[in-house]
Formats: sequence, structure tokens, C-alpha cells
Amino acid sequence: MSMKKAVAGVVVLGGLVCTSAAWADDAPGVSDEMFAINNVWMMVSTFLVFAMHLGFATVEAGLTRAKNTVNILFKNTAIVAIGLLTYTLIGFNLMYPGGEGWFIGKFLGFAGFGIGTDATGLTSAYNPGYTYWTDFLFQGMFAATAATIVSGAVAERVKLSSFLIFSTLYVALIYPAVGSWKWGGGWLAERGFHDFAGSTLVHSVGGWAALAGVLLLGPRTGKYFNGRGVKPIMGHNMPLLTIGVFLLWLGWFGFNGGSVLSADPGAVSYVLTTTSLAAAAGIIGSMLVSWNVQKKPDLSMVLNGCLAGLVGITAGADVVSIRAAVLIGLLCGAVAVVSVIAFDKIKIDDPVGATTVHLVCGVLGTLFVGIFANGATVGAGADAYTISLRTQVLGAISYGAICFPAAFLIFAGLKASIGIRVSVEEEVKGLDIGEHGMEAYSGFQIFTTQ
Amino acid sequence: MSMKKAVAGVVVLGGLVCTSAAWADDAPGVSDEMFAINNVWMMVSTFLVFAMHLGFATVEAGLTRAKNTVNILFKNTAIVAIGLLTYTLIGFNLMYPGGEGWFIGKFLGFAGFGIGTDATGLTSAYNPGYTYWTDFLFQGMFAATAATIVSGAVAERVKLSSFLIFSTLYVALIYPAVGSWKWGGGWLAERGFHDFAGSTLVHSVGGWAALAGVLLLGPRTGKYFNGRGVKPIMGHNMPLLTIGVFLLWLGWFGFNGGSVLSADPGAVSYVLTTTSLAAAAGIIGSMLVSWNVQKKPDLSMVLNGCLAGLVGITAGADVVSIRAAVLIGLLCGAVAVVSVIAFDKIKIDDPVGATTVHLVCGVLGTLFVGIFANGATVGAGADAYTISLRTQVLGAISYGAICFPAAFLIFAGLKASIGIRVSVEEEVKGLDIGEHGMEAYSGFQIFTTQ
Amino acid sequence: MSMKKAVAGVVVLGGLVCTSAAWADDAPGVSDEMFAINNVWMMVSTFLVFAMHLGFATVEAGLTRAKNTVNILFKNTAIVAIGLLTYTLIGFNLMYPGGEGWFIGKFLGFAGFGIGTDATGLTSAYNPGYTYWTDFLFQGMFAATAATIVSGAVAERVKLSSFLIFSTLYVALIYPAVGSWKWGGGWLAERGFHDFAGSTLVHSVGGWAALAGVLLLGPRTGKYFNGRGVKPIMGHNMPLLTIGVFLLWLGWFGFNGGSVLSADPGAVSYVLTTTSLAAAAGIIGSMLVSWNVQKKPDLSMVLNGCLAGLVGITAGADVVSIRAAVLIGLLCGAVAVVSVIAFDKIKIDDPVGATTVHLVCGVLGTLFVGIFANGATVGAGADAYTISLRTQVLGAISYGAICFPAAFLIFAGLKASIGIRVSVEEEVKGLDIGEHGMEAYSGFQIFTTQ
Repeated sequence: MSMKKAVAGVVVLGGLVCTSAAWADDAPGVSDEMFAINNVWMMVSTFLVFAMHLGFATVEAGLTRAKNTVNILFKNTAIVAIGLLTYTLIGFNLMYPGGEGWFIGKFLGFAGFGIGTDATGLTSAYNPGYTYWTDFLFQGMFAATAATIVSGAVAERVKLSSFLIFSTLYVALIYPAVGSWKWGGGWLAERGFHDFAGSTLVHSVGGWAALAGVLLLGPRTGKYFNGRGVKPIMGHNMPLLTIGVFLLWLGWFGFNGGSVLSADPGAVSYVLTTTSLAAAAGIIGSMLVSWNVQKKPDLSMVLNGCLAGLVGITAGADVVSIRAAVLIGLLCGAVAVVSVIAFDKIKIDDPVGATTVHLVCGVLGTLFVGIFANGATVGAGADAYTISLRTQVLGAISYGAICFPAAFLIFAGLKASIGIRVSVEEEVKGLDIGEHGMEAYSGFQIFTTQ
Repeated sequence: MSMKKAVAGVVVLGGLVCTSAAWADDAPGVSDEMFAINNVWMMVSTFLVFAMHLGFATVEAGLTRAKNTVNILFKNTAIVAIGLLTYTLIGFNLMYPGGEGWFIGKFLGFAGFGIGTDATGLTSAYNPGYTYWTDFLFQGMFAATAATIVSGAVAERVKLSSFLIFSTLYVALIYPAVGSWKWGGGWLAERGFHDFAGSTLVHSVGGWAALAGVLLLGPRTGKYFNGRGVKPIMGHNMPLLTIGVFLLWLGWFGFNGGSVLSADPGAVSYVLTTTSLAAAAGIIGSMLVSWNVQKKPDLSMVLNGCLAGLVGITAGADVVSIRAAVLIGLLCGAVAVVSVIAFDKIKIDDPVGATTVHLVCGVLGTLFVGIFANGATVGAGADAYTISLRTQVLGAISYGAICFPAAFLIFAGLKASIGIRVSVEEEVKGLDIGEHGMEAYSGFQIFTTQ
Repeated sequence: MSMKKAVAGVVVLGGLVCTSAAWADDAPGVSDEMFAINNVWMMVSTFLVFAMHLGFATVEAGLTRAKNTVNILFKNTAIVAIGLLTYTLIGFNLMYPGGEGWFIGKFLGFAGFGIGTDATGLTSAYNPGYTYWTDFLFQGMFAATAATIVSGAVAERVKLSSFLIFSTLYVALIYPAVGSWKWGGGWLAERGFHDFAGSTLVHSVGGWAALAGVLLLGPRTGKYFNGRGVKPIMGHNMPLLTIGVFLLWLGWFGFNGGSVLSADPGAVSYVLTTTSLAAAAGIIGSMLVSWNVQKKPDLSMVLNGCLAGLVGITAGADVVSIRAAVLIGLLCGAVAVVSVIAFDKIKIDDPVGATTVHLVCGVLGTLFVGIFANGATVGAGADAYTISLRTQVLGAISYGAICFPAAFLIFAGLKASIGIRVSVEEEVKGLDIGEHGMEAYSGFQIFTTQ
């Protein structure tokens, strides 16, 4: 069983090359104590990534209308289950095929159905940073996030059954298959593509599918008048949105911090610092642009700006300098505001801005690695590689070239067969009643005519 | 001072017998480093169990009406305080009487009032997995959950003062006394009853009391017409419910993961995996049944199905296989939907489904250990025992045989004296105004006539 | 670069003097493993303190009106960003000037702009408990809390731009400058002032500024009639408030537990226990007083009582006994109810009770250390000092003597220039529309005339 490659040996930290000590790759020489502490760190990171699913659920619910809230919460709950169970059955072994598992060069491989390990999976013989089970669970929590990103973009009009089928296929097959290119040790890993924690592998993979879904679904009814303008559809619950964004930031400590794959004190704490500063700068960047462009600072723009900064730093949190981290956050936060407005201008209706945050900033963050850490060496020995903008562009494009068509095909197939959109009547009445026969806020007086 | 027995030596992991390394029982030979990492893990687990109290509060508030929200939040806040303070005064020493503390065979014991330790309580001489204070706090956080389970079942009609008195007595005396039977090293521990993290000791103990309370209180006014049918009373806030369930799943990582009682990498990460897969399968199991039986998939059913899977796996998370964990989750999730509908049919009105989730699935999970891990050996040396369905049945029944009558007696005593139910007028107006003189959502237009 | 002094060597735990083992100050002799575990603990604590910002946001939103919710959430989001970025630029080096950085005795110092470290910052040569980056991030998360405390007190009427300018100045300059007096090794540290985790350094520093802001702003329109009485203005969302208080308690495990500055099992677990028991006792203390004084137990009073207990124990969580911790919690919880009512009587309008919780109980907690741990010796060797009530009084007063005037001057300057209060029209309509052009609960029927 293969595994995500541990960042170790010589690590580039903000331009400062330092030798990592006993926390990582000296295995199997790592002590029982070091193995235990590494594994605790990875388990804590797993919990934090799990908490991101609640973050996504509340962000998406907060940014949409009250009448579609049950539907959104339902989708986000189901996705976690689907993600973990398909990862158990197929995904883990598709993403990490290992030496014997590759069968199409290093483009595609499979190590067999199901999970399970012998006793060595419980020791540092498996990996100095974690057990087999921690590895599985940490990666499994990542898997579901790709599908969750789609959920928000297609909200308020997608048919529940079609969405669940799409998610199952995308998270079971596409996400792990393309993930193997880098984290499974595939062809992009060999070319020196750098995506520390998944600006491309997770966020753009979800973002490309979100874009495909939005294009095939079309905008929400009433959103765009015939060439005469845009009707803003406001989210119904800003506290929920805020709770979600804070939970996502919290979860990102595990998403990025756990991607060090050990508790290496210097490497992890550096990654947490670049991550936090990019998030903070994303807030400031989007606040400045929003205040200027929209005249008044928009809370949802600023919170999306925070997420934009987080997505942007994810590819290079381990290799960019502190100044670059702040700059990346500022730029992604600023771009996020412009991008959300631009998508609306060209009538691509994404209720929560997922294409902006995860696709646009995911790609941007991947390219920023090639700019701000250009020429840096990552890894040691045979696995060492040098970061280049050229390879970052290649990687970002490669993912789009497979993920967008794949998602488009699945959605198109569903559209042609069982349909992907609810009726206009159901859309107006709300998907909560239509798909679930219940309301999110029983007893409250709510205007659903909007 | 006695303590929860560390799962160590030879551990059965999904049918795979492996020898646990230095993380646990070799004390006092455990290194300072291993002691520190074990203790950090147990502290993190303590925080996660604490977070479950917020999970319970939001689940119960979400599943009931807006007019009773303050009351529910108040009860759940007070219970944490009551639980911790009574555990300080009495509970800890009642649950872990230790060698000198037993005075009725191994049915009941007491090691004296109050807590406190000498310097050895701060070292691995106390336990290789944690200090005295971590032990106390982790167990104290567990204690309050039993009473919290009752809170939801009796919601929307129970008198505040009576509920607080009941909770105080139940959590101070009953929960720790019966808990000592297994975790305190009492008579059921000696017979080889297996309840890893408390399907029986925590969830059914709370569930039996919930059932007693519901029976003595009777249904909410307007819920059942004279033999003519059931009026569904919808919960007022599905985002709150969803937040709660995700927090409970998050907390369960500590509830089950911490019950390993050390940071043993293999054992803990395995438990986290079975726990997560059972939760995921609980979602799928309840979704399938709900979609078929109710025609549309009900969000609250699916979220309760998730909790059902978690309660079900709690007894055997350390000993069942991965496949069994998924199966247990599926079954408990499916049963939860049927059970909630069945309780309603026989006019047992439990607004949040606590009797289903915690009692029915708590007992089921306990029995599943005897089925899916039948014949497995747990522990080593003199403490080793073999799992049998017979003993699992004995354990499950024994807890019911004491807890239900005990809870019934306390509630009946309160009913005969100060009363346990608010007036119909107060019930219609809402307990928020009646018991607390305030509203949960000041300024919102809410229909309270429901 | 200097740093917060590690509590180590001889530690006083509830009157019990014990020798701390290898977890702390034996550096540079601390093992790689111990360094890694200490650092993991400090990172986890950092996450928990981060979560407190969401706690503050939801508490403040819950206790105010729906029409000002976006504004409150915006302020609390912006403050985290401002806090972290100014701490990067100035704060960290102002708070920990180090040996070379002091230029006005030990009252004020500065180690230069920006952050960054050489390779030694990543090893135990920097500190046995954490890396340079962990140190920065943990302290940075603390910094923003002081400004956040102000946010609630000035809510529902303060002008956004003025508040953001005030916060930037206060968190960038005042908080770290006065913080250096104790945690930076300044003049109060040398005199033996004891403030374990910041009852004075964080909570009273925020509280003094809150008081200054409230006095200069005046009460909310409609709150006090001309000498004829007080109109209660109810918070709009009790679930949000409850979520916030539970998150704050959770975060306090890191706030206090992380202030041990290592994973020392005995010291950390003891601090967590005193912290939890004070929180629990705060709930009971406020419940008893609220039930007696207000006739019905008020949920918001009880939740503020919980926070009061937490603030109160923060100064002495490491040195007071278990009994004293419970007593401190009870007293602070009880005082909180009386104090909130008293502030209202003298027409000091603080919508969330921040002056009560953070200022009154922050000062009280600081003095309680001098009462309940009077004569205790803290630290070892040259750094050892003896706790005295006299020094505690000196410390508490010194902070007020600088912080209140400083905050008053900044707010007064803003008042005289760009103004600090929105127009009455905007106040009546709500700051969400006025400052942000959006609503928190789009679609809901809400009465904003209140």
C-alpha cells in the first residue's frame, strides 16, 4: 500500500532551508514515542478536516434561501457518508495504488477493493508518521470535500437523486484517480508538480465539477432578467455563514497542518502560520475591494475572501515565505470579490461562489507556488524536485482537462436520463418541501416568494 | 484510587490479534515522553467529549419548538455544571471505588467524598495513560451525558426544578454506581461483559431514564388525538440539529477514541475508523429506510440514523471488524427510523427520539458485540476475558433492571410531591416564557399556537 | 527573541508543591520527542484559542438585535485578521522585546518590525515547549481577543470605520506594550505579579477599553428613559449565545491549558480541572442569584455566569486549590448577575455584559490569586517569586491606569474627528443596512422597531 509522500529531509521554509530532525523520514528508526506523537497529530488533523464538512454545510445553508436549507444540509450530510464508504470500497486503493497497483503507466492504478491491513500497518514500519488506519481516515475525510464543493454551486435547483448519484461517481472514481497523479506518486509527482495540501488536487477538482454542474443546470429561476440585469438573491442566515467560515479556517489547520504528514514541529508550525496569515490577509484584501467597489463592506464577500486566501495558500503553505503568504492571501481575497461579480455578469449563477473560491483561487494558488517559490528544492535524495512555474501550469491544466469533461459527462448523462433539475414549481416552493417534505424553520414566518 | 481498565496487552482488532507496544500497560516503565503523549491524547479526548454537550443542546433545541428553546438550552447548560460538580463531590469515587472502597461485594463501593491526589497522581505511577486529573475530567465529562440524554426526551413539558433535581440525583448516584460494575472493576467486569465506551454504561443508562420520564410525564398536549391519529410536531431549526449531530460525531472521536485510555496508535486509529464507518453507514441505512417508508428522505431521520450508528458501534468499536462496523451502522440506522415511528404508534412521545437512539441502539450495540466479536479474547493475563452473547445479554438486562426502576422511582417521587409537568397553559405558551421569562428569538415573528 | 516564561521547576498545584519532570525547563536537554509533544500541545491550544473568536462572535450576535447582526459578525471577523496581521508587523516584538529590545527600563521595548527566525527557532534551542512559529501563532491568537471584548460592549451603535481604527491601534500598540510588563519579562514580572493566563493582561485590558468606549458612546437609543426607568433590549438569538459560550469554554482549555507553555501532564491537567470546575461553579452561582433576584432563572445571566467563572479562574488556574477554584467560580458567577444589573442601574449600557465579565471578573480573579494562593512560591531559582495580595492589587491597578486612559484617548480622538456613533436613523434601522447594505436574515419577518 502506497501513501502520501512525507515532506521531510530538506524542507524549504519561507526560503530558509533547514534539515528536518527525527520527526519524519528516518523510519523505521523512528522511536515508539515519535510514532505515537506523529499519529496523534495526524488524528487531530483528521478531526479538524472532518469539522470542515460542518463548515461547508453551514456556509452553503447560510448563503442560500431558507426554503432550500433542509436540502442543503441533507446533501452535505449524505456526502460525508458517501465519501467515507466509497473511499473504503474503492477510493483509497485508487488514489494510492502502490508499486504493484499501477496498470496504465502512472496515470491510473488500483490496489483492489476494500481496506484492511496486517499488523505492520499499526507500526512505524507502515509509515513513521501514522498507522494505516489514520492514513485511511485522514485521506477519507479529504475525499468527501471535493463533492461538497459542488453542492453549494448547484444549490437551490438541483435534483437530490441526481446530485447523490453524481457525487458518488465523482468521489469514488474521479477524485482518487486524478489524486494519484501527485499524492499517489503518479506521473505529476515524478515531474515535480507541487501541490502541498490540495489547491489543485482537492479544491480545483471540486471547482471544475461545480462549474460543469452550474453550466448544465443554468441559473436559478428569477436570477437573470432577459438581458436587463441581475436580481441579487440574498443568503438567509449570516450567522450560519460566519460559523461555517470560522469552522473551515479551524479545519484548515488540519487540512494543511496534517499534510506535513508528521508532527515535525518546525514544518507544521510554519505551515499553520502561513495558513493563518493568508486567511487574515484574504479578509483584508476582500474588505478593501468590497468597500471600494460595492461602497459598503459586504460580510459575505469578506468571508468568502477569507476562504479564498485559505484555498490560495494551500498549494504552497510549506514553501512560500511569510511575506508571500500575506501577499497570496491579499490577492486571492481581492480577486474573489471581482470574480464573484464577474461570474454574475456573464450569468453563471453559483449561489455560494464555489467556482470563485475553489476553482479560481485553487488554480491561482497553484500558480503562485511557481512564482513565489520558483526554483526551491523540495524533498531529498531521489525524490527531490525543483519547483517551476511551467510545471505548476501543466499540473493545473491537466486537472482541468480531465475533471471538467468528466464531471460534464456525468451531469450530462444524468440530465439526459433522469434529469438534474427540479421543476419550476418545486424551485419556487422550495426544495425542502419538494424533496424532503419538511421545513427548516417550522413556526417561523418566512417569505418564500423571493 | 482505581481507574478504567486500560485496553492493552493483546487487543483484538477486527479479528486481527496484535500485540500492543509501549503505549499502554508496561507501566511504570513507560517513558516520560510516552506518558506525556498519552496524556495529551486523553486531554484532547476530554475536550471532544465536552463538545458533545453543545451537540446535545443544539440537537434537542433543533428538534423541538421555538417556544421551548431557552428552556432546553438552560437545562443542557445546567447539566454540565451539575454533572461536573457532583462528580467532584461523589461520582468519581462511587464509580471507581478501588480495592479498599468496595463494601457490597463488587456491586457498590465508595472511596470517600471529594477529589484530590498526592504527587504520584501526576506521574505514570498513577496510570501510564494519564494523570489523576485527566482521568477525573475525562470521566466527569462522560457523567453528564447520561442526564443530558434524558433532557431531550422529556422536553417541552417537564418542570425545570423537577428536572434539575432528577438530574442531580441520577448523575450523582445512579450513573456512577452502575458504572462501577464494569469500568470500576465490579461484578460485570469480572464476568467478561464487554462495553468498550458505553453503549450500555452511558447510552442505555440515559435511555432507561428517558423512557421512565416519558412514561410518567405523558405526551405533549395535542400530540395524540383520542385514538384518531398522531399530529406531527416539527422541530423548529434544522441547521441547529445538523450542527449538533456533526458536533456529536466529532465528540465521538474522543468518546470512543479516548476510551482506549492511551494514545496507542494502532488501537486508537482503528477505533476511530470503525466509529466513523458506523456513523456513515447509519446515515445510509436510515436514508434508505426513510426514503422507502416515508417516500421522501427525512433530514431528521437521517441525522438520528447517524447518531444511532454511533451509539451502536460504541460497545464494540475496538473488537468488531471493519465489515461488522459498517453492518452495525446500517442496521442501527435502519432500526432507528422504524423505532421512532413505532414509539409514536404506541403513543410514547419522545420529541427528539432519545429512547430510540440511546436506549434501543445502545442495547442493540451491546448485543452486536456478542454476535460480531463472539469468542474474541480481550485483555491479557489475569484480566483477560472471552466475549459471549450470553454475557452481553446479562449486562444489558442488568442495567435496565436497576436504571429503569431507579429513574422511575425518582420521577414518581417528584411527581407525587412538587410535580414534574408544567401547566397546560404554560405548555401552550411555551416554557421559555413560563420557566425563564424570556424568548429565544426576540423580534422574530413566530407562530406558537402549534 | 524573548518569550512567555515557562511555568516549570517547582510548581504550586493547589497548595501541593511538586517537582515538574522533563516536560519543561531542562532545555536544551529536552528530547526531540518531548519537544514534539510539547509543540503539538501548544498547537492544539492555539486552535482552541482561535475557536474563541467564533465564540465571541456568536455570543455578541446572540445578545444583540437581529438588525445589527451582520455588523457584529463583520467586526469580529475583521478583528481576527487585524489582530494577526498587526501582531506580525509590530505586536509580537512589542510584547516580547527580549534582552536587547528594552529601551525604557522594563516598561517598554521593541525588537523590530516583522517576524522571522533562523533554524534555531525550529528546535528546542528556542524553547523546550514550542517552536518560534507556534509561539507567534499562540500569542497572536491571544492578541485579537482583547479587541474582541470591546466589540460587544460598543455594539449596536458604534461606527464601523471608527471601531476598526480603534481596534487596530489598541491591539497593535496597547495590548502588547502592557502585556510585556508581565509576559515579556517586564517590571511587573520582576515584582512577582501573578497572572497565569490573563485575567488582567487579556480580559481586564479588553474590559477597560470596553468601559471607555461605552462611556464615550453613551447608551443605545431608547434604552433609558429620562430618569424613569430601563427598557430591557433582548438579544435576538439564544442558540447563538449558547453556542458561543460553549465554544468559549472549549477555547479556554487552550487559553489556560496552553498557558502552561508545555504539555507537562500534571500541570496542564490540573489547570484544565480548575478551569472546568470554575466554569461549572459560575453556572451554579449565577443560577442561584438569578433565580432569587429575577424570580426566574435567566439563561443569558447563567451563560454570562459561566464566562465570569472562566475569566475569574484565569489568573490563578495553576496555583489555587480545587476548593478555591469552585469558590472563585461561584463568587464570580454570583457577582456577574449583580454587576450586570448594577451597570444598568447607573445607565452604563453594555449590550453583552462585557465590562462585567471581562473587567469586573478579570480584576476579581486577579485579586483572588492574592487571597487563595497568598504566600505560594511560583517558579524556581532566580525567577522564583512569592504571591501576595499587595502585588496583585498593584498589577490590577497598573493595567487600569494605562489602559483606560489610552482607550479613552483613542476613542475621544475618533469622536472629535470622524465620529464614533452612527446616526439615530441608522441605529433605529439597524447597522446591518446602514453599514453593510445587507440583512442577516433575509426572508424572515423580523420586528426592527424595538
